[in-house]
Amino acid sequence: MGGQEIEQLIRLLGRLPGFGPRSARRVALYLLREPHTRLAPLARAMERAGEAIRTCSSCGNLDTSDPCHICSDPLRDKGLVCVVETVGDLWALERAGVHRGVYQVLGGTLSPLAGVGPEDLNVSALLTRLHEGSVREVILALGATVEGASTMHWLMDRLETYEGLTISRVAQGVPMGGALDVLDDGTLAAALGARRPA
Amino acid sequence: MGGQEIEQLIRLLGRLPGFGPRSARRVALYLLREPHTRLAPLARAMERAGEAIRTCSSCGNLDTSDPCHICSDPLRDKGLVCVVETVGDLWALERAGVHRGVYQVLGGTLSPLAGVGPEDLNVSALLTRLHEGSVREVILALGATVEGASTMHWLMDRLETYEGLTISRVAQGVPMGGALDVLDDGTLAAALGARRPA
Ligand SMILES: [Zn+2]
Ligand SMILES: [Zn+2]
Repeated sequence: MGGQEIEQLIRLLGRLPGFGPRSARRVALYLLREPHTRLAPLARAMERAGEAIRTCSSCGNLDTSDPCHICSDPLRDKGLVCVVETVGDLWALERAGVHRGVYQVLGGTLSPLAGVGPEDLNVSALLTRLHEGSVREVILALGATVEGASTMHWLMDRLETYEGLTISRVAQGVPMGGALDVLDDGTLAAALGARRPA
Repeated sequence: MGGQEIEQLIRLLGRLPGFGPRSARRVALYLLREPHTRLAPLARAMERAGEAIRTCSSCGNLDTSDPCHICSDPLRDKGLVCVVETVGDLWALERAGVHRGVYQVLGGTLSPLAGVGPEDLNVSALLTRLHEGSVREVILALGATVEGASTMHWLMDRLETYEGLTISRVAQGVPMGGALDVLDDGTLAAALGARRPA
């Protein structure tokens, strides 16, 4: 529709999560109708975010600094580590404001079918901190899915070797088959508050 | 969440049509996880489309050339002009491949409440072509809304002064209260095929 530059834009928009051809065209038209006030600022914001983005080498969060603003915050409890699957889960918990410790982002779950094994999960920083003896409690905040459960059991096997370490898991409030980052703040607070020994 | 560059990206994404804060965060994360293969190409495509975009001075279409590829196509019937509200409507009719003439994009509908009067609608190019006597038939393809109907009647008043001009309107197939650009191709083809004298 109207030149290869426009078609390319629609094609790339159509690959975004939640997009189909129709919404890609709608967003492209919305942007192209006001190229200076809509399209250019968004393109600029993308470029800047792309240049600024860093993966936190400590927890795996996406931020504009490494270590991220959570890991480098002296007020956060470094002895309390919350393990999540994705950065989206971390952001959801931060928005809810229910966790005063730090995080470990696994970057996924164990999934033999999808070819995701233990070596693909980001746990080395957590194990390093455990070896140093600076961690008091690990909260497993994984989704209530088959993959989340098998990942949790695999992690518990590894964590149980650390003497004196409390291992807990979010329990109440995470609906079956649900992912954490679609829950409302209250549910997240309840799930975290009612955590129990794993 | 993680630096002002990321927050700015999420803020601008949240203004897109069909977006809320949640979908803006989801799309931002999707892009930021792969800045080189996802974010950068989309930003580049936006910039290029923004530089290439032109409004066709003849019909009002958005394209990368002026006149647009439809107006400059020698195979299109310049004597058959289809009047639509938006570029999105034009694109929908083109996708359906049901119109072999050219277009006139009004850029909206008459709407006293929204402060849109006749002077805000793009009709001058159509009137010029009518004065030149090169137009045989005008098809009014406006949405079946209150604004679409009042715009159609205002246009018919102006068009009826041209002797020998056939004025028709899409009739069958456009659902009440519906906009053209959400219809499937078959419905659009039926609506155009069953047009009747206005
Ligand atoms: Zn971090
Ligand atoms: Zn044109």
